[in-house]
Amino acid sequence: MKASLNHPSNNSYRNGVEILSIGTELLLGNIVNTNAQWISQQLSLLGLNHFRQSTVGDNSERIGSLVQEISTRSNLLITTGGLGPTPDDLTTEAIAKSFNFSLYERKYLWEQIKQKLSNSKLKDSSSLRKQCFFPKDAQIINNPRGTAPGMIWEPIKGFTILTFPGVPSELKEMWKETAFEFIQNKFSNGFVFFSNTLKFSGIGESTISEKIDNLLKLRNPTVAPYANLGEVKLRITAKAKNASEAKNIIKPVKEKLTEEFSKFIFGENDDNLPSVLIKELKKRKETLVFAESCTGGLLSSSITSISGSSKVFKGSIIAYSNALKKSLLNISEDQLKRYGAVSEEVAEAMSINAKEKMSADWAISISGIAGPNGGSQEKPVGLVYISIAGPTNHITNIKKIFNSTRNRMEIQTLSVNVCLNSLRLILLSNST
Amino acid sequence: MKASLNHPSNNSYRNGVEILSIGTELLLGNIVNTNAQWISQQLSLLGLNHFRQSTVGDNSERIGSLVQEISTRSNLLITTGGLGPTPDDLTTEAIAKSFNFSLYERKYLWEQIKQKLSNSKLKDSSSLRKQCFFPKDAQIINNPRGTAPGMIWEPIKGFTILTFPGVPSELKEMWKETAFEFIQNKFSNGFVFFSNTLKFSGIGESTISEKIDNLLKLRNPTVAPYANLGEVKLRITAKAKNASEAKNIIKPVKEKLTEEFSKFIFGENDDNLPSVLIKELKKRKETLVFAESCTGGLLSSSITSISGSSKVFKGSIIAYSNALKKSLLNISEDQLKRYGAVSEEVAEAMSINAKEKMSADWAISISGIAGPNGGSQEKPVGLVYISIAGPTNHITNIKKIFNSTRNRMEIQTLSVNVCLNSLRLILLSNST
Repeated sequence: MKASLNHPSNNSYRNGVEILSIGTELLLGNIVNTNAQWISQQLSLLGLNHFRQSTVGDNSERIGSLVQEISTRSNLLITTGGLGPTPDDLTTEAIAKSFNFSLYERKYLWEQIKQKLSNSKLKDSSSLRKQCFFPKDAQIINNPRGTAPGMIWEPIKGFTILTFPGVPSELKEMWKETAFEFIQNKFSNGFVFFSNTLKFSGIGESTISEKIDNLLKLRNPTVAPYANLGEVKLRITAKAKNASEAKNIIKPVKEKLTEEFSKFIFGENDDNLPSVLIKELKKRKETLVFAESCTGGLLSSSITSISGSSKVFKGSIIAYSNALKKSLLNISEDQLKRYGAVSEEVAEAMSINAKEKMSADWAISISGIAGPNGGSQEKPVGLVYISIAGPTNHITNIKKIFNSTRNRMEIQTLSVNVCLNSLRLILLSNST
Repeated sequence: MKASLNHPSNNSYRNGVEILSIGTELLLGNIVNTNAQWISQQLSLLGLNHFRQSTVGDNSERIGSLVQEISTRSNLLITTGGLGPTPDDLTTEAIAKSFNFSLYERKYLWEQIKQKLSNSKLKDSSSLRKQCFFPKDAQIINNPRGTAPGMIWEPIKGFTILTFPGVPSELKEMWKETAFEFIQNKFSNGFVFFSNTLKFSGIGESTISEKIDNLLKLRNPTVAPYANLGEVKLRITAKAKNASEAKNIIKPVKEKLTEEFSKFIFGENDDNLPSVLIKELKKRKETLVFAESCTGGLLSSSITSISGSSKVFKGSIIAYSNALKKSLLNISEDQLKRYGAVSEEVAEAMSINAKEKMSADWAISISGIAGPNGGSQEKPVGLVYISIAGPTNHITNIKKIFNSTRNRMEIQTLSVNVCLNSLRLILLSNST
């Protein structure tokens, strides 16, 4: 890399793709750079080597200097940001200037912009008009969701730049409509990367990793674990000539994992616990209700975030106060006094009564201490009782004590995960 | 920049801070780089010039080469990632090697790591031990939340490197405990940046920006707008010798904004709508319940995400199905037939009955169509009815039609915002 920097004329060192994110708001930390992540994923899909990313502010000189630097070592540069109408949108101008090229107006773009905007917004036309100026031999990337087009430009032989706006939705549309195919045709060396993600619940990342030590060392496909709160993913990625060949490479590894972890795997790719549960209950034509205390609506919300949940989910009673546990869920004063609201007995009564009162096939109840206050030696923060009542009046009771270092939101989220995964396992074990 | 690249010996060009994020998972797009954003914010607070960020994979040669490059133009480098025990954690090694320095074990660090870990995890001690090796004259940054320490190292005069692990919680603790003060003492040029953020609800970013055109042009303090879903923030940032001088610079601008937008401003800095509402209801010793349909628990969950919400929030009835609207909220078959579940009439009956049934001072009900299915010409996706019943039996009904381009989650989130902000405004108008 250093060698090529000292000999900018030496083309043979140019190799690989870089991403350049442009925007002072990134340097100030006002926004997180989700564009760089999204483009990285796209480049992975395209099987392209991508060694480096940079971020720079809205400063013409620094943009130009950095693009010059990149042009000495890489053959493809993707930029985001700085294509809009405001004075600090400098990207096209700065890049062209650094290669000593001028910008020329494309009249038809101005006609397009005028069609896209209402008259009131067109008042300030001089700044909008800026978006129609490009180097003479640049190819335009149409922007179906906004007014700022991008460009595909090869200012010097062997170095191509693609520019996109910083607005994520515009970038994505433009990428799909124009850039993906262009890059695939011109830069992919005949390989694609294809991924299949398996999703786990009820098992930790370290336990999985230990058991598949050998798979984690594979080169093609690669197997990589990622952990979220209460969920582990294994991404299997194959490099191949095409998607169907990649799927064949992935298949045996996927089968081995499915065999080894069977019931811990709840789904793949875009599946999540609520969507998997809803699908299964729909198939069984069974309904679901909740009686929530410590999760305070988060369990219900996780289910109703899924479109189509109304087919199986009837509703919930969120009995946050003891008064409502009594009046809405028929928990007796005696039960509350004898066992306390956070107890196996009360949780069980909550699930039985919720199922009855809301006439559902399944009811999940949950009562616990989400913290940070309200814990005691006997009943610490993180203690949670879950009860699941089913169609045959079979009751499953679960006690969990989450680590004391967990904060309120984590305890609520992990509790929701245990509720959903426990019901999933029960459905799995009594499916025919 | 170019000049200094060609003359690495020329120290006088070194100026400013850079961030280098290290990790192949960033280049693959597996994770989003929130660390770079967080460090950027911290550097802003410290008033430091920060012109550039880079990302590179877990590759010793490329890490070393990039650090060399940065050492020719900047005087402070912050790195994240690559400090752990696995073979692809190469940061310390790669940096030292690029400056021709060797690593030496710090025995006391190994003792610390052993104390932090259980015996089972210590089995694989050779890889963990790697984390104790540093250049001879490096200062250690203690890691209070993990096993991988960082370092403060000046490999050549005028160029200092601070290394941190990639785990965000560890980075943040180490920064607060050690790095912040070190950087402030050695690199801040006597100025601090101090921010005060005002939070708005019920008004759009463009409306605010138009009205404060003149304030947005200020240099000290600067005023910058940011918009989230249903919430706008204005960040006022002053550059000053110390925090109290900065507050004085901010004060008149803050006063002007508070005067201009009064009731649209619901709080500042860490406030959010639920926390502000809970605080106000606590003060009034009044209680709150919900009857949710289309938001399916999200409204309840937003309130119960706040610690201490049990002081005012009693609970909710989530009547997702019409059957539960009848049985739990006493909505009549006749009302449902005549007006439909998504109607002002049913929403109003829901709030009145919820307040009565759960014996609260305030009840908010909401019924609408969150989509993507279930809409009709007459009642489109995005149509939402909200009703608020208060202590004096005064009822406020609100109808909202959210833009048809909004997805399910956005409609639910925006609905929750309108519910909370509407109650806030009612409380504001009848406070004494």
